[in-house]
Amino acid sequence: MNKLETLPYRGARDFYPKDQKILNYIFNIWREAALESGFEEYNGPFLEPFDLYAAKSGEELVKEQLYSFEDRGGRKLAIRPEMTPTVARMIAAKSKSMIKPIKWFSIADFWRYEKPQRGRGREFFQLNADIFGENSVLSDFEVFTLGARIMEHLKAKPNMYEIRVNNRLFMDFALEKIVGFSSDRKSIVMRLIDKKNKMAPGEFEKALVDSAKATGTQVQKLNELLKFDLNNVRKLADENRGAKELTDFFELAKKSDYAEIFVYDPQIVRGLDYYTGLVIEQWDKNPKNNRSMYGGGRYDGLTDLFAGAEPLPATGFAMGDLTLINFLESWQLLPQFKNETAALVTVLAGFTQNSVSISETLRKSGIKTELYLNDGDGLDKQIGYANRKEIPFVLIIGEKEAKDGKVMVKNMATGEQTACGLTEMNQILDTLWKA
Amino acid sequence: MNKLETLPYRGARDFYPKDQKILNYIFNIWREAALESGFEEYNGPFLEPFDLYAAKSGEELVKEQLYSFEDRGGRKLAIRPEMTPTVARMIAAKSKSMIKPIKWFSIADFWRYEKPQRGRGREFFQLNADIFGENSVLSDFEVFTLGARIMEHLKAKPNMYEIRVNNRLFMDFALEKIVGFSSDRKSIVMRLIDKKNKMAPGEFEKALVDSAKATGTQVQKLNELLKFDLNNVRKLADENRGAKELTDFFELAKKSDYAEIFVYDPQIVRGLDYYTGLVIEQWDKNPKNNRSMYGGGRYDGLTDLFAGAEPLPATGFAMGDLTLINFLESWQLLPQFKNETAALVTVLAGFTQNSVSISETLRKSGIKTELYLNDGDGLDKQIGYANRKEIPFVLIIGEKEAKDGKVMVKNMATGEQTACGLTEMNQILDTLWKA
Repeated sequence: MNKLETLPYRGARDFYPKDQKILNYIFNIWREAALESGFEEYNGPFLEPFDLYAAKSGEELVKEQLYSFEDRGGRKLAIRPEMTPTVARMIAAKSKSMIKPIKWFSIADFWRYEKPQRGRGREFFQLNADIFGENSVLSDFEVFTLGARIMEHLKAKPNMYEIRVNNRLFMDFALEKIVGFSSDRKSIVMRLIDKKNKMAPGEFEKALVDSAKATGTQVQKLNELLKFDLNNVRKLADENRGAKELTDFFELAKKSDYAEIFVYDPQIVRGLDYYTGLVIEQWDKNPKNNRSMYGGGRYDGLTDLFAGAEPLPATGFAMGDLTLINFLESWQLLPQFKNETAALVTVLAGFTQNSVSISETLRKSGIKTELYLNDGDGLDKQIGYANRKEIPFVLIIGEKEAKDGKVMVKNMATGEQTACGLTEMNQILDTLWKA
Repeated sequence: MNKLETLPYRGARDFYPKDQKILNYIFNIWREAALESGFEEYNGPFLEPFDLYAAKSGEELVKEQLYSFEDRGGRKLAIRPEMTPTVARMIAAKSKSMIKPIKWFSIADFWRYEKPQRGRGREFFQLNADIFGENSVLSDFEVFTLGARIMEHLKAKPNMYEIRVNNRLFMDFALEKIVGFSSDRKSIVMRLIDKKNKMAPGEFEKALVDSAKATGTQVQKLNELLKFDLNNVRKLADENRGAKELTDFFELAKKSDYAEIFVYDPQIVRGLDYYTGLVIEQWDKNPKNNRSMYGGGRYDGLTDLFAGAEPLPATGFAMGDLTLINFLESWQLLPQFKNETAALVTVLAGFTQNSVSISETLRKSGIKTELYLNDGDGLDKQIGYANRKEIPFVLIIGEKEAKDGKVMVKNMATGEQTACGLTEMNQILDTLWKA
């Protein structure tokens, strides 16, 4: 038989313990910040009926990026490429009996068939945080500030990132009333705006003419719109609900702890089709890494797609692990993760049982303990193992210790050895390790 | 367009917050117990090359239960049905530069195409814990006792479950030397023994004759073997390594804290092909629910399947969430999960900003806080929301409080209201909530 490859599938990641520590660090902060804001954790299946994505997830995602296949019973399935359709389905199923607003978050993994590159893999993890059943601007503010609070927990400073805000309703209004695009052109233009940042100079204007049949005046007016500031928007607040929401949002933001974080940006429209109001994108301000990290926004009415469901307003965002890890690395915000094991209990032939008992005692008092696993190895080799694994204390039980009912505690940093009783040993480890 | 269904895919589960709390409770205990024993956390991809399972996972798993498909580039993939092939691949890739023994655990989700029933779904979670690079019986004992320690953390008592132990090497030896099966029959017989518990009386004997061409004497001798106790095994310890390992294992077990938990059972052989030594299965002792909960064992040599890898001994087990939840429910061991949010901050028109600030202050000091999200609703409705969500404290900031720089703290249990400054409010919540 041919030998197997040890590489993972392209775009997938193996998380060795040092990588998993980074993930856990991020997951713990995601969870902690979301719980602090009163969000409740949920999760959904990794596989969903294909139709769930066909409905609203956007053409690129479904036609090019979805992993879909038939199960052994001929049922068409897809691996989830995002959480929003799942959470909308779950809410639609039970919202009538739930207390609203519903504030939910999840931490889950997703797959998209994309070309792997820096900050993008085929498998990725996301925090999804959403509020269902409330359409106030305050609920958008609440969910978007969770993003900022997470960044604060991760020790990011306002010079490192910003959250750019726009409104789909406003863009819809402005593209028609200010720029003069007819309804059927607007979604094409919206998609071009979403990609503008990745285009070469002139390419955007060319695409507007080619795909959206824009006139010269329209190109010019659109470029003016894309330079709007909040003053321009505020003047339209009486005419358009989207402009009013933007005005109210920044009223809240500028008096909050996150005044520096939120900025108005008319170029933010988001790629997915289901957004209906305020939208955000978080950007890394690092000149070497200046790019969008994650996004979100209001998507009222997604639950309407489901049989028997009540229509519910909704707003949320999804923050991925890949761009976040790049961000934390480039700003040097990742902590040093220390070895978690406090003690190695050695095993000497004839006294293995004593060592097993001691390791159990330590573990029961919550001290992270390794038991050496081969009593055929000499003590030097066992101590060497503790040294290489950076375990700070070694406990030795030989003939003398067993007879005296004691344990020899060796402090690996100082080399000091103390023979002590069990209670004393527990105290030493507890005190020294926690120090 | 037709409306979408709100049901998840058959055999998949939606984890609403109350379900997710149970999962998190179990995951936290899995992680805590594994870290206490000095295991390090890792994870691998959800999709793997199909060939990884074709090699060693066992016929039933690959031919009937695997979710497999081709990606858009024509590469044959599978959704992981178990962790062992992934962890063997990851270890094989890097073991030469790793400190051994390697003690690893992971918490991950898996899929198998099976008929959903009580304790079995198509999607399930597992803790996998393994030790690579050590073939001592002590290393088997170390990994198997982690299972028992987890049960202890989950408050299970020795009357509720047992871990049945056998040895593949010993069974291999006994089937040939004691029962007289030729090499080519042994794997068929092994598979029948694995299924014996689910068979009707007489069915096992009939299958032995039909599939393994067993003689009457062989059937009789096999039935005697399946009634062996440790004394029978001990007598063969000089002749067979498997018998020696069983003897040594119970020598360790009977002097440990888990003397009552581990029992010898010659009927335990485990279904998967890759086991090579000691094997275990944990059984629920509840008469209404008497069945196998999870299993594990030694599987030396799995890393040999990979190109460039060194051969490594290995031992481990996988504990699933579904049978465990059934176990905890039937023995009434699941705790009551209380609401985690300590306070609701109300929002009154004109003072929304004050409420936003206060909720931020509370969250920054780690107090789980909900902000009411619609300042158009009256105070009664807002307090009613806190009541329905069982949030123990309501904080009110109206005109008077804003002017005085105070917050009205309402204790929902007593109805008591106290106007206090910010420091005082923090103290009250901190003290009362943690009490």
